[in-house]
Amino acid sequence: MKITTARKITDSLHLNLFEIGYTNTRDEESLWTIASRASQPKCMTGRYDPPDAVVIVPFHKKLEKLVIIKEFRVPLGGLQYGFPAGLVDPGETTDQAVKRELKEETGLDLLTILKTSPPVYSSSGMTDESVSMVYVECNGTPCADANEASELIETIFVTPDEAGILCVSTEIKVDAKTWLVMNAFSENKTI
Amino acid sequence: MKITTARKITDSLHLNLFEIGYTNTRDEESLWTIASRASQPKCMTGRYDPPDAVVIVPFHKKLEKLVIIKEFRVPLGGLQYGFPAGLVDPGETTDQAVKRELKEETGLDLLTILKTSPPVYSSSGMTDESVSMVYVECNGTPCADANEASELIETIFVTPDEAGILCVSTEIKVDAKTWLVMNAFSENKTI
Repeated sequence: MKITTARKITDSLHLNLFEIGYTNTRDEESLWTIASRASQPKCMTGRYDPPDAVVIVPFHKKLEKLVIIKEFRVPLGGLQYGFPAGLVDPGETTDQAVKRELKEETGLDLLTILKTSPPVYSSSGMTDESVSMVYVECNGTPCADANEASELIETIFVTPDEAGILCVSTEIKVDAKTWLVMNAFSENKTI
Repeated sequence: MKITTARKITDSLHLNLFEIGYTNTRDEESLWTIASRASQPKCMTGRYDPPDAVVIVPFHKKLEKLVIIKEFRVPLGGLQYGFPAGLVDPGETTDQAVKRELKEETGLDLLTILKTSPPVYSSSGMTDESVSMVYVECNGTPCADANEASELIETIFVTPDEAGILCVSTEIKVDAKTWLVMNAFSENKTI
Protein backbone atom coordinates (compact mmCIF):
# COMPACT_ATOMS: atom_id res chain seq x y z
CA MET A 1 0.00 0.00 0.00
CA LYS A 2 1.17 3.55 -0.69
CA ILE A 3 0.05 7.13 0.02
CA THR A 4 -0.45 9.14 -3.18
CA THR A 5 -2.23 12.42 -2.36
CA ALA A 6 -3.52 14.56 0.52
CA ARG A 7 -6.26 17.17 0.16
CA LYS A 8 -7.08 19.52 3.05
CA ILE A 9 -10.88 19.84 3.16
CA THR A 10 -11.34 22.26 6.08
CA ASP A 11 -9.71 25.49 7.24
CA SER A 12 -9.99 25.39 11.03
CA LEU A 13 -7.41 26.75 13.48
CA HIS A 14 -6.63 23.71 15.65
CA LEU A 15 -7.90 20.61 13.81
CA ASN A 16 -8.56 19.82 10.15
CA LEU A 17 -9.80 17.01 7.94
CA PHE A 18 -7.72 15.67 5.07
CA GLU A 19 -8.73 13.28 2.31
CA ILE A 20 -5.80 10.92 1.78
CA GLY A 21 -5.43 9.06 -1.51
CA TYR A 22 -3.74 5.67 -1.28
CA THR A 23 -3.26 2.50 -3.27
CA ASN A 24 -4.91 -0.48 -1.56
CA THR A 25 -3.80 -4.13 -1.53
CA ARG A 26 -5.64 -4.74 -4.84
CA ASP A 27 -3.75 -1.84 -6.49
CA GLU A 28 -6.92 0.25 -6.59
CA GLU A 29 -6.89 3.98 -5.78
CA SER A 30 -8.85 4.62 -2.57
CA LEU A 31 -9.60 7.48 -0.18
CA TRP A 32 -9.31 7.67 3.64
CA THR A 33 -10.49 10.67 5.70
CA ILE A 34 -8.26 11.65 8.61
CA ALA A 35 -8.10 14.41 11.23
CA SER A 36 -4.83 16.23 11.94
CA ARG A 37 -3.68 19.14 14.07
CA ALA A 38 -0.93 19.98 11.53
CA SER A 39 -0.99 21.96 8.29
CA GLN A 40 0.12 18.76 6.54
CA PRO A 41 -0.45 15.29 8.02
CA LYS A 42 2.52 13.10 8.99
CA CYS A 43 1.88 10.69 6.09
CA MET A 44 2.79 13.58 3.73
CA THR A 45 5.59 15.30 5.66
CA GLY A 46 7.29 12.07 6.79
CA ARG A 47 8.08 13.77 10.15
CA TYR A 48 7.12 11.48 13.04
CA ASP A 49 9.24 12.99 15.83
CA PRO A 50 8.82 14.97 18.12
CA PRO A 51 5.38 13.88 19.40
CA ASP A 52 2.45 16.30 19.21
CA ALA A 53 1.81 16.03 22.94
CA VAL A 54 2.95 14.56 26.23
CA VAL A 55 0.78 12.39 28.47
CA ILE A 56 2.18 12.37 32.00
CA VAL A 57 1.90 9.33 34.32
CA PRO A 58 2.72 10.97 37.68
CA PHE A 59 3.53 9.02 40.84
CA HIS A 60 3.46 11.17 44.01
CA LYS A 61 6.57 10.14 45.90
CA LYS A 62 5.55 11.29 49.38
CA LEU A 63 1.97 9.97 49.20
CA GLU A 64 3.00 6.85 47.22
CA LYS A 65 -0.08 7.21 45.02
CA LEU A 66 -0.81 7.56 41.31
CA VAL A 67 -1.95 11.07 40.31
CA ILE A 68 -4.90 11.49 38.00
CA ILE A 69 -7.01 14.49 37.08
CA LYS A 70 -10.71 15.02 36.58
CA GLU A 71 -11.43 17.68 34.00
CA PHE A 72 -14.19 18.92 31.71
CA ARG A 73 -13.63 17.68 28.13
CA VAL A 74 -15.61 19.53 25.48
CA PRO A 75 -15.73 16.59 22.99
CA LEU A 76 -17.31 14.44 25.75
CA GLY A 77 -19.57 17.15 27.15
CA GLY A 78 -18.60 16.30 30.70
CA LEU A 79 -15.94 15.35 33.20
CA GLN A 80 -13.28 12.79 32.33
CA TYR A 81 -10.68 11.05 34.49
CA GLY A 82 -7.30 11.21 32.78
CA PHE A 83 -3.65 12.08 33.11
CA PRO A 84 -2.16 15.58 32.96
CA ALA A 85 -1.33 16.13 29.29
CA GLY A 86 -0.80 18.80 26.72
CA LEU A 87 0.61 19.80 23.37
CA VAL A 88 4.36 20.39 23.15
CA ASP A 89 4.81 24.11 22.41
CA PRO A 90 7.01 25.22 19.48
CA GLY A 91 10.66 25.37 20.60
CA GLU A 92 9.94 23.36 23.73
CA THR A 93 11.45 19.94 24.52
CA THR A 94 9.18 17.13 25.67
CA ASP A 95 10.82 17.28 29.13
CA GLN A 96 10.02 21.01 29.37
CA ALA A 97 6.44 20.35 28.27
CA VAL A 98 6.10 17.67 30.98
CA LYS A 99 7.31 19.99 33.74
CA ARG A 100 5.10 22.88 32.51
CA GLU A 101 1.91 20.88 31.97
CA LEU A 102 2.25 19.04 35.29
CA LYS A 103 2.58 22.36 37.11
CA GLU A 104 -0.17 24.15 35.13
CA GLU A 105 -2.72 21.37 35.40
CA THR A 106 -2.05 20.04 38.92
CA GLY A 107 0.26 22.47 40.72
CA LEU A 108 2.62 19.55 41.46
CA ASP A 109 6.41 19.72 41.08
CA LEU A 110 8.34 17.38 38.80
CA LEU A 111 11.05 15.43 40.63
CA THR A 112 12.32 12.78 38.19
CA ILE A 113 11.46 11.57 34.72
CA LEU A 114 11.44 7.77 35.02
CA LYS A 115 10.61 6.72 31.46
CA THR A 116 9.65 8.37 28.15
CA SER A 117 8.06 6.42 25.32
CA PRO A 118 8.84 7.13 21.67
CA PRO A 119 5.97 8.95 19.91
CA VAL A 120 3.00 6.55 19.96
CA TYR A 121 -0.31 6.99 18.15
CA SER A 122 -3.66 7.79 19.82
CA SER A 123 -6.02 6.34 17.22
CA SER A 124 -4.32 5.63 13.91
CA GLY A 125 -7.55 4.73 12.11
CA MET A 126 -8.67 8.37 12.21
CA THR A 127 -5.74 10.64 13.07
CA ASP A 128 -1.96 11.04 12.88
CA GLU A 129 -1.90 12.40 16.47
CA SER A 130 1.10 11.17 18.46
CA VAL A 131 2.01 11.45 22.13
CA SER A 132 4.90 10.45 24.35
CA MET A 133 3.92 8.63 27.53
CA VAL A 134 6.13 10.08 30.27
CA TYR A 135 6.32 8.35 33.66
CA VAL A 136 7.46 10.72 36.41
CA GLU A 137 7.83 11.09 40.14
CA CYS A 138 6.45 14.29 41.64
CA ASN A 139 5.79 15.99 44.96
CA GLY A 140 3.83 18.97 46.27
CA THR A 141 0.26 20.04 46.93
CA PRO A 142 -2.42 20.32 44.20
CA CYS A 143 -3.33 23.81 43.03
CA ALA A 144 -5.61 24.83 40.14
CA ASP A 145 -4.54 28.51 39.96
CA ALA A 146 -2.65 28.02 36.66
CA ASN A 147 -5.59 26.35 34.88
CA GLU A 148 -6.58 28.03 31.59
CA ALA A 149 -10.08 29.41 30.88
CA SER A 150 -10.96 26.18 29.04
CA GLU A 151 -9.79 24.08 32.00
CA LEU A 152 -11.44 23.12 35.28
CA ILE A 153 -9.14 20.52 36.78
CA GLU A 154 -9.31 18.54 40.01
CA THR A 155 -6.24 16.52 41.06
CA ILE A 156 -6.87 13.09 42.60
CA PHE A 157 -4.47 10.63 44.26
CA VAL A 158 -5.27 6.93 43.95
CA THR A 159 -4.06 3.70 45.52
CA PRO A 160 -4.02 0.50 43.44
CA ASP A 161 -7.38 -0.53 44.98
CA GLU A 162 -8.94 2.87 44.23
CA ALA A 163 -7.63 2.68 40.63
CA GLY A 164 -9.30 -0.74 40.32
CA ILE A 165 -12.64 0.70 41.45
CA LEU A 166 -12.42 3.54 38.87
CA CYS A 167 -11.63 0.97 36.14
CA VAL A 168 -14.90 -0.92 36.59
CA SER A 169 -17.20 2.07 37.15
CA THR A 170 -19.73 2.66 34.37
CA GLU A 171 -20.84 5.96 35.93
CA ILE A 172 -17.71 7.92 34.99
CA LYS A 173 -15.75 8.68 31.81
CA VAL A 174 -12.12 7.57 31.66
CA ASP A 175 -9.38 8.26 29.10
CA ALA A 176 -8.18 5.04 27.40
CA LYS A 177 -4.47 5.47 28.25
CA THR A 178 -5.32 6.27 31.88
CA TRP A 179 -7.61 3.23 32.09
CA LEU A 180 -4.78 0.96 30.88
CA VAL A 181 -2.26 2.34 33.40
CA MET A 182 -4.81 2.23 36.25
CA ASN A 183 -5.78 -1.35 35.30
CA ALA A 184 -2.12 -2.50 35.43
CA PHE A 185 -1.52 -0.44 38.62
CA SER A 186 -4.51 -2.09 40.35
CA GLU A 187 -3.28 -5.57 39.47
CA ASN A 188 0.48 -5.19 39.85
CA LYS A 189 0.57 -2.46 42.54
CA THR A 190 3.13 -0.51 40.51
CA ILE A 191 3.25 1.82 37.53
CA MET B 1 -18.65 24.57 31.85
CA LYS B 2 -21.52 23.62 29.54
CA ILE B 3 -22.04 22.61 25.89
CA THR B 4 -24.37 24.98 24.06
CA THR B 5 -24.22 24.23 20.31
CA ALA B 6 -22.78 21.84 17.70
CA ARG B 7 -22.31 22.75 14.05
CA LYS B 8 -21.27 20.08 11.51
CA ILE B 9 -18.74 21.70 9.19
CA THR B 10 -17.97 18.80 6.80
CA ASP B 11 -19.97 16.18 4.95
CA SER B 12 -17.70 13.15 4.73
CA LEU B 13 -18.79 9.52 4.92
CA HIS B 14 -16.72 8.16 7.81
CA LEU B 15 -15.38 11.13 9.80
CA ASN B 16 -16.53 14.73 10.22
CA LEU B 17 -15.53 17.95 11.98
CA PHE B 18 -17.91 19.72 14.33
CA GLU B 19 -17.58 23.16 15.88
CA ILE B 20 -18.79 22.87 19.47
CA GLY B 21 -19.96 25.96 21.35
CA TYR B 22 -19.41 25.89 25.09
CA THR B 23 -19.34 28.21 28.08
CA ASN B 24 -15.86 28.35 29.63
CA THR B 25 -14.88 28.79 33.29
CA ARG B 26 -15.12 32.60 32.93
CA ASP B 27 -18.72 32.28 31.58
CA GLU B 28 -17.54 33.31 28.10
CA GLU B 29 -18.88 31.61 24.95
CA SER B 30 -16.06 29.68 23.24
CA LEU B 31 -15.60 27.23 20.35
CA TRP B 32 -13.83 23.84 20.22
CA THR B 33 -13.29 21.87 17.00
CA ILE B 34 -13.73 18.11 17.29
CA ALA B 35 -13.71 15.09 14.97
CA SER B 36 -16.45 12.45 15.21
CA ARG B 37 -17.48 9.33 13.30
CA ALA B 38 -21.15 9.93 14.19
CA SER B 39 -23.81 12.15 12.60
CA GLN B 40 -24.03 13.97 15.96
CA PRO B 41 -21.18 13.92 18.51
CA LYS B 42 -21.69 12.30 21.92
CA CYS B 43 -21.68 15.69 23.70
CA MET B 44 -24.95 16.46 21.85
CA THR B 45 -26.66 13.05 21.86
CA GLY B 46 -25.71 12.18 25.46
CA ARG B 47 -25.22 8.52 24.36
CA TYR B 48 -21.91 7.17 25.65
CA ASP B 49 -22.58 3.44 25.44
CA PRO B 50 -21.98 1.17 23.47
CA PRO B 51 -18.37 2.00 22.47
CA ASP B 52 -17.59 2.89 18.85
CA ALA B 53 -14.98 0.14 18.60
CA VAL B 54 -13.30 -2.76 20.34
CA VAL B 55 -9.55 -3.01 20.91
CA ILE B 56 -8.58 -6.64 21.57
CA VAL B 57 -5.70 -7.63 23.89
CA PRO B 58 -5.23 -11.27 22.84
CA PHE B 59 -3.14 -13.77 24.80
CA HIS B 60 -2.37 -16.98 22.87
CA LYS B 61 -3.02 -19.76 25.37
CA LYS B 62 -0.96 -22.51 23.73
CA LEU B 63 2.05 -20.32 22.88
CA GLU B 64 1.73 -18.28 26.12
CA LYS B 65 2.49 -15.07 24.22
CA LEU B 66 0.82 -11.73 23.66
CA VAL B 67 -0.59 -11.31 20.13
CA ILE B 68 -0.01 -8.07 18.25
CA ILE B 69 -0.46 -7.14 14.62
CA LYS B 70 1.60 -5.11 12.17
CA GLU B 71 -0.57 -3.32 9.65
CA PHE B 72 -0.49 -0.44 7.19
CA ARG B 73 -2.24 2.63 8.64
CA VAL B 74 -3.17 5.28 6.10
CA PRO B 75 -3.06 8.23 8.59
CA LEU B 76 0.56 7.25 9.45
CA GLY B 77 1.61 6.42 5.89
CA GLY B 78 3.26 3.19 7.01
CA LEU B 79 3.22 0.09 9.17
CA GLN B 80 2.12 0.28 12.79
CA TYR B 81 2.31 -2.30 15.60
CA GLY B 82 -1.04 -2.50 17.35
CA PHE B 83 -3.81 -4.74 18.60
CA PRO B 84 -6.57 -6.27 16.47
CA ALA B 85 -9.40 -3.74 16.60
CA GLY B 86 -12.43 -2.56 14.72
CA LEU B 87 -15.70 -0.69 14.77
CA VAL B 88 -18.69 -2.43 16.33
CA ASP B 89 -21.16 -3.04 13.48
CA PRO B 90 -24.81 -1.91 13.85
CA GLY B 91 -26.81 -4.61 15.66
CA GLU B 92 -23.66 -6.35 16.86
CA THR B 93 -22.66 -6.80 20.53
CA THR B 94 -19.13 -5.92 21.60
CA ASP B 95 -18.47 -9.64 22.24
CA GLN B 96 -19.55 -10.49 18.68
CA ALA B 97 -17.33 -7.69 17.31
CA VAL B 98 -14.37 -9.07 19.29
CA LYS B 99 -14.80 -12.59 17.90
CA ARG B 100 -15.30 -11.31 14.33
CA GLU B 101 -12.43 -8.81 14.28
CA LEU B 102 -9.99 -11.24 15.90
CA LYS B 103 -10.81 -13.84 13.23
CA GLU B 104 -10.81 -11.37 10.30
CA GLU B 105 -7.59 -9.63 11.24
CA THR B 106 -5.51 -12.54 12.59
CA GLY B 107 -7.29 -15.82 11.75
CA LEU B 108 -7.14 -16.75 15.46
CA ASP B 109 -10.06 -18.26 17.40
CA LEU B 110 -11.52 -16.60 20.48
CA LEU B 111 -11.49 -18.91 23.53
CA THR B 112 -12.44 -16.73 26.52
CA ILE B 113 -13.16 -13.08 27.19
CA LEU B 114 -11.19 -12.29 30.35
CA LYS B 115 -12.07 -8.63 30.90
CA THR B 116 -13.97 -5.85 29.12
CA SER B 117 -13.48 -2.19 29.98
CA PRO B 118 -16.35 0.30 29.94
CA PRO B 119 -16.18 2.63 26.91
CA VAL B 120 -12.95 4.65 27.31
CA TYR B 121 -11.85 7.60 25.20
CA SER B 122 -9.00 7.58 22.64
CA SER B 123 -8.09 11.26 22.66
CA SER B 124 -10.73 13.43 24.30
CA GLY B 125 -9.03 16.71 23.35
CA MET B 126 -9.93 16.17 19.69
CA THR B 127 -12.57 13.44 19.35
CA ASP B 128 -15.48 11.71 21.07
CA GLU B 129 -14.22 8.30 19.85
CA SER B 130 -14.64 5.55 22.45
CA VAL B 131 -13.40 1.97 22.57
CA SER B 132 -13.73 -0.97 24.91
CA MET B 133 -10.46 -2.68 25.80
CA VAL B 134 -11.19 -6.43 25.68
CA TYR B 135 -8.65 -8.89 27.13
CA VAL B 136 -9.07 -12.38 25.66
CA GLU B 137 -7.47 -15.79 25.43
CA CYS B 138 -7.22 -17.26 21.95
CA ASN B 139 -5.75 -20.20 20.06
CA GLY B 140 -5.09 -21.20 16.46
CA THR B 141 -2.77 -20.33 13.59
CA PRO B 142 -2.51 -16.87 11.98
CA CYS B 143 -4.18 -16.41 8.60
CA ALA B 144 -4.66 -13.18 6.60
CA ASP B 145 -7.23 -14.53 4.11
CA ALA B 146 -10.11 -12.52 5.66
CA ASN B 147 -8.24 -9.18 5.51
CA GLU B 148 -10.14 -6.41 3.68
CA ALA B 149 -8.74 -4.54 0.65
CA SER B 150 -7.60 -1.70 2.92
CA GLU B 151 -5.82 -4.17 5.23
CA LEU B 152 -2.43 -5.88 5.04
CA ILE B 153 -1.98 -7.53 8.40
CA GLU B 154 0.82 -9.62 9.88
CA THR B 155 0.22 -11.39 13.20
CA ILE B 156 3.12 -11.46 15.68
CA PHE B 157 3.51 -13.31 18.99
CA VAL B 158 5.65 -11.67 21.67
CA THR B 159 7.18 -12.67 25.00
CA PRO B 160 7.53 -10.08 27.77
CA ASP B 161 11.18 -9.50 26.74
CA GLU B 162 10.26 -9.06 23.07
CA ALA B 163 7.50 -6.62 24.06
CA GLY B 164 10.09 -4.63 26.04
CA ILE B 165 12.34 -4.38 22.96
CA LEU B 166 9.45 -3.11 20.79
CA CYS B 167 8.63 -0.49 23.48
CA VAL B 168 12.04 1.20 23.26
CA SER B 169 12.52 1.00 19.48
CA THR B 170 12.50 4.36 17.72
CA GLU B 171 12.55 2.69 14.28
CA ILE B 172 8.94 1.46 14.38
CA LYS B 173 5.49 3.00 14.92
CA VAL B 174 3.42 1.70 17.83
CA ASP B 175 -0.20 2.37 18.82
CA ALA B 176 -0.44 4.10 22.24
CA LYS B 177 -2.75 1.53 23.86
CA THR B 178 -0.57 -1.32 22.60
CA TRP B 179 2.57 0.40 23.90
CA LEU B 180 1.03 0.69 27.38
CA VAL B 181 -0.01 -2.97 27.52
CA MET B 182 3.37 -4.14 26.13
CA ASN B 183 5.21 -1.91 28.64
CA ALA B 184 3.28 -3.43 31.57
CA PHE B 185 3.63 -6.95 30.07
CA SER B 186 7.42 -6.54 29.76
CA GLU B 187 7.73 -5.45 33.39
CA ASN B 188 5.15 -7.64 35.11
CA LYS B 189 5.27 -10.69 32.77
CA THR B 190 1.47 -10.72 32.58
CA ILE B 191 -1.34 -8.91 30.80
